[in-house]
Amino acid sequence: MTFQSPKGTRDFFPQNLAALHHIESAWRNASVNAGFDEIEGPTFEHLDLYTVKSGDGIVSELFSFTRAGGDVDYALRPEFTPTLARMAAAKGRSLTLPTKWFGIPSHFRAERPQRGRLREFKQWNVDLLGVDKPSADAEVIATAIHALANLGLSHDDIVVRISHRDVVVKMLQENGVPEDKLPIALTLLDKREKMAPDVFAKKLTENDLEPACFEQFDGDTVIDHEELTSLQDELNAWGISDWCTFDFNIVRGLAYYTGIVFEIHERSGAERAIAGGGRYDKLIEMFGGPSMPAVGFGMGDVVLSLVLKDKKLLGDGSEFLPKPDVFVISAGGDADAHLAPTIAMLRNAGLHARMTYRATRNVGKLLTEAAKTDTRFTLILGEELTRGTVVIKDMNSGEQTEVALSDIVSHITA
Amino acid sequence: MTFQSPKGTRDFFPQNLAALHHIESAWRNASVNAGFDEIEGPTFEHLDLYTVKSGDGIVSELFSFTRAGGDVDYALRPEFTPTLARMAAAKGRSLTLPTKWFGIPSHFRAERPQRGRLREFKQWNVDLLGVDKPSADAEVIATAIHALANLGLSHDDIVVRISHRDVVVKMLQENGVPEDKLPIALTLLDKREKMAPDVFAKKLTENDLEPACFEQFDGDTVIDHEELTSLQDELNAWGISDWCTFDFNIVRGLAYYTGIVFEIHERSGAERAIAGGGRYDKLIEMFGGPSMPAVGFGMGDVVLSLVLKDKKLLGDGSEFLPKPDVFVISAGGDADAHLAPTIAMLRNAGLHARMTYRATRNVGKLLTEAAKTDTRFTLILGEELTRGTVVIKDMNSGEQTEVALSDIVSHITA
Repeated sequence: MTFQSPKGTRDFFPQNLAALHHIESAWRNASVNAGFDEIEGPTFEHLDLYTVKSGDGIVSELFSFTRAGGDVDYALRPEFTPTLARMAAAKGRSLTLPTKWFGIPSHFRAERPQRGRLREFKQWNVDLLGVDKPSADAEVIATAIHALANLGLSHDDIVVRISHRDVVVKMLQENGVPEDKLPIALTLLDKREKMAPDVFAKKLTENDLEPACFEQFDGDTVIDHEELTSLQDELNAWGISDWCTFDFNIVRGLAYYTGIVFEIHERSGAERAIAGGGRYDKLIEMFGGPSMPAVGFGMGDVVLSLVLKDKKLLGDGSEFLPKPDVFVISAGGDADAHLAPTIAMLRNAGLHARMTYRATRNVGKLLTEAAKTDTRFTLILGEELTRGTVVIKDMNSGEQTEVALSDIVSHITA
Repeated sequence: MTFQSPKGTRDFFPQNLAALHHIESAWRNASVNAGFDEIEGPTFEHLDLYTVKSGDGIVSELFSFTRAGGDVDYALRPEFTPTLARMAAAKGRSLTLPTKWFGIPSHFRAERPQRGRLREFKQWNVDLLGVDKPSADAEVIATAIHALANLGLSHDDIVVRISHRDVVVKMLQENGVPEDKLPIALTLLDKREKMAPDVFAKKLTENDLEPACFEQFDGDTVIDHEELTSLQDELNAWGISDWCTFDFNIVRGLAYYTGIVFEIHERSGAERAIAGGGRYDKLIEMFGGPSMPAVGFGMGDVVLSLVLKDKKLLGDGSEFLPKPDVFVISAGGDADAHLAPTIAMLRNAGLHARMTYRATRNVGKLLTEAAKTDTRFTLILGEELTRGTVVIKDMNSGEQTEVALSDIVSHITA
């Protein structure tokens, strides 16, 4: 009998998890340095939390379940914002504003797995609650960029495409899209890049929309919008305008956003969006919390890993595996009795210390085994023990030093 | 409308998550220093993975589900060993032995929440595959103890109760328990500590078992078992015999273990078991992998947190929240234009830098705000900018220094 991991999920062997942790560290460092506090919620929520905003239509995209013998419906969380909003609402008036929260939870979507989209993935969520200013928008975008820069990406690799719901609506209206057609026009605009041009044209015809209404979105657009002008000033002040462009093809989900929206893409258009976000000033209230402005984004690990691998900024992850500080060898005989106590002493001192599990006491063979672990030092327990010393070999320089038992830790940590 | 987290799950606000991360760091450091590599698997597995070993009876203890429109049964993982065994089996003969793996996954159990038992929790899993020696058992136990010691616990607080399946069976047989009654006798012995004495007595009568058969387990037992004698020598060599005791009341689940079994408890018996583990030499094979010996344990965060709080070794977690390196204040006017660039520069240099979101430019009020964040330094952007300098205040000493703009980072990191 053999088993496999569920479709669309991943087994993280040590090198795979080291690669994920490398990304998570960049996310966490950028967040903490920007003064965001980390939060986490349950892996599953009441199903209602998701249907209240998105309607029952979302259920087919969720993994939902009921406890055997129970009568409450749950769902694995497909995104973090409802949990964040619920947590902010739970704090109510005791929530000090601004609140800057981030999280790196797992998310689950019951869709068909494809390149860049899995059924389980990690997502970095960053949210700034309580500030209704372009400076907050800019700080959130700067935090995303900071993490990407720490992973080795530059503005030659990456573009933040910034749009604004009001501007897009106004452009559609000015181009003659009638009020009742705005929702479908926005939805089609949002999906246009993922469609073949003839499919898009067909969709327009089906919905009685004129192709001319959408032509303006293809070229450069003159920005005449106070909020975006302020945002441009802020992006300059934060030193990130090289990473950013205004692009009114960006729409994003209609149920959420109330102001600026943005997506982060690989600049040449390779892979799906790396991140998406924007301003959602009504959402906390929708989940029973106090009314408060908010801006944030989500960035998943799957597309980002693909982009990093495309750019040769991420290998198979083995480059990030922890390396031993010291590998301890016994030459056999009386020295064997010192093996476990020495290892225990080194580990208690906070060092990463390993040993062989093989029976051989051939020092040459054991030095080869030590070298394979990429250890910094190898400590050899041998006849020198009779005079209270051991031999420590620096594996980079090859230099061997005889060190008193009491000085082992200080020699290695020097 | 208001929402709550599902019963038996937790919302981790920043201080709660900081407390969890404090525990996870101790787990991770002890594992890495002992040469274990971290792995992770899917949050849910095929339901079969759990029923193959434990039978359909386990389904009521699981959160199981099917994707809408799908025909495959899944379950949220209640424990990590089946995933670990599946991953080891997937590697097959390419798995280098010994393999030392640990993980800190979330687990889910659909049982009634109570003190120390939640429906979602984190569990540290440590497994050493491929070594069939008491030295491996001792190393695994030493790793558990190392993490507990790093959290501030001592052998006055904690006891590792070590047993061996063969010894327990032999004791029961010698006391006259017939072969066909051994499974129920082991199950009752395992549960005895959680039962009132009269309930235990009633269970014995119901199952035609003599109370006298169990009396030997109450007192000290003479150990006459080669493996345990070797283990005692190893525990001495690892310097952890003060933490350990042999205790043949420990049985643990029958489907798993083949040799030594152990539980870690608060010494006075407060709270449930902190950890449980043992040797499971048949399990990898059961999941389709090659036959290999294995020893490991699991330690959950819920009971451990209670023990740490009981011992005043863990507060509300706010003691572990990250503190800013520097809080940047603008005195207003022209200095405001320097705010975002200065913050960006500090964060790009890897520093944790914060600022106010308030409109006030009253330096006294802003210094008070800065002090509340426990920042190490406050940087004041003011009229000194005209000569290319800023004032940096050391918040511990109160000392104020005028520093050139180009020297800000080196002053703070010095």
